[in-house]
Amino acid sequence: MRLKDLGEFELIKRFRKKIKTDTMVIRGSGDDCAVLRFNARYHQLFTCDMLVEGVDFYKSTDLYLVGRKALAVSVSDIAACAGVPRHAVVSLGLPKNMPVARVDRLAKGMFDLAAKFGVNIVGGDISAADKLVIDVSMLGEVEKNKLCLRSEAKPGDLIMVTGAFGGSIKGKHLKFTPRLKEARFLVDNFKINAMIDVSDGLLQDLGHVLEQSKAGGVLYESLIPLSKAAKNAEEALCSGEEFELLFTASREEAGRIIKNKKYRFKLIGEIMPESFGLRLIDYESRYSKLKLKGFRHF
Amino acid sequence: MRLKDLGEFELIKRFRKKIKTDTMVIRGSGDDCAVLRFNARYHQLFTCDMLVEGVDFYKSTDLYLVGRKALAVSVSDIAACAGVPRHAVVSLGLPKNMPVARVDRLAKGMFDLAAKFGVNIVGGDISAADKLVIDVSMLGEVEKNKLCLRSEAKPGDLIMVTGAFGGSIKGKHLKFTPRLKEARFLVDNFKINAMIDVSDGLLQDLGHVLEQSKAGGVLYESLIPLSKAAKNAEEALCSGEEFELLFTASREEAGRIIKNKKYRFKLIGEIMPESFGLRLIDYESRYSKLKLKGFRHF
Repeated sequence: MRLKDLGEFELIKRFRKKIKTDTMVIRGSGDDCAVLRFNARYHQLFTCDMLVEGVDFYKSTDLYLVGRKALAVSVSDIAACAGVPRHAVVSLGLPKNMPVARVDRLAKGMFDLAAKFGVNIVGGDISAADKLVIDVSMLGEVEKNKLCLRSEAKPGDLIMVTGAFGGSIKGKHLKFTPRLKEARFLVDNFKINAMIDVSDGLLQDLGHVLEQSKAGGVLYESLIPLSKAAKNAEEALCSGEEFELLFTASREEAGRIIKNKKYRFKLIGEIMPESFGLRLIDYESRYSKLKLKGFRHF
Repeated sequence: MRLKDLGEFELIKRFRKKIKTDTMVIRGSGDDCAVLRFNARYHQLFTCDMLVEGVDFYKSTDLYLVGRKALAVSVSDIAACAGVPRHAVVSLGLPKNMPVARVDRLAKGMFDLAAKFGVNIVGGDISAADKLVIDVSMLGEVEKNKLCLRSEAKPGDLIMVTGAFGGSIKGKHLKFTPRLKEARFLVDNFKINAMIDVSDGLLQDLGHVLEQSKAGGVLYESLIPLSKAAKNAEEALCSGEEFELLFTASREEAGRIIKNKKYRFKLIGEIMPESFGLRLIDYESRYSKLKLKGFRHF
């Protein structure tokens, strides 16, 4: 059997079954970040993301944006756990013939984003490679009582998002701002139950929350905020690399959250009991059958 | 200008100049690991290493050994700082057509090494890629008073190593055991001034120690322990990926270290004032001019 026949998510499940961790690990593989014991007040967050030329970007893509994205995706993972990013190491696979000016451009994108979000780049590794590969590992911190996981959505919670969806491939996937401020505002002022960043697609990532929370959910198609770049609601539901946050909170908290004056969060649905499954109510108020479409590497 | 014209080490210097870090970073880029503030007793260590098919291994290489090596190189970096490894995240770039059995083999190599050295694999990222790429980031801990850096060698220190050198490419580079126990034994029982793991080559890595310690050094060719696979002393001095540790300690400590009954450490030279440069005394007791040959990616 080949990887493309097994599929990305089955492969990940296969790995997870073999993993054993000790008591220092509060949450291993399966969330936006690993959660590790740190000190009396904080947990440590640990995440990594790899970008590959020809898959995540093209040879013609401005490497400033690639460098920026390489760190921004990890900042987004840390934001999804409601943490603050601290340190990163960067591994680069670089073609020998690559012009130094292009590496400088890549580095500038990384350093600018690191500066903007207070991330220390503390080390790295450089290897020769046929195609450009960038892997960033990032550490963050989160107050123990503010940590948000995918697994804590409760039936009755309302589902909210930080922004609009659709057509990310037209530009947002390279230029998005990780929703760090929004995440911190949420956990500083409200009780958030579950949170995830939308990298695989709204439906698919909501699916991850539901699976891990052992819950069902309903989404209202008419409530999904559409980006200017969105084709339609269906596309917006499946569009990968939107890097908005999806989060859930009790009805009371949701009411307070929606009324806040600082950020606009949008209500898109509700967490239901597990037996309900995941359903979409379409523009004609009919249940639509949902297929979990979204980005998969294979 | 192309990367191959600039060279790997010049590129790294170029990056380092642009890096700014805050007070949480005790030591950023430039040692085997980054050293980060952790708690009252410990520092945290953070390192990453990327392996690329066609560069670090071949398509025909047993992926069990590749998986093993992917983690072992980071364990070796943590050993070089005298720490204990704790957690790792793994990014994989995988060809879509790769047989699942090969990925399983890679994973088994990783999990076996992780289990042997007490490393929790706590997360990862999977991407499609033309060629196999594995990047491992690892966290470790070290008692503040046991941390070893490259920069602390003192004139008069003796230079010692944990094992034999040469011909690593014939097999050791895939099968080496990171010198974690040796490193911990050393710092638990003796005062070690500087330490590094030999990944670029004995001469070149000693050069890193001397540069960062602002010191010179002398090596005795007849004292270099040669592996069975070594061609000759010159080859052994330049052979990359040996993954033995090179360390320095005062003359008194060195005497005690050499006399220990548990591990065999070998004396190979002495740290000198910076003005002395780096010199090799050859088999005929003549100064040999040293060129810093060793592995470079470009």
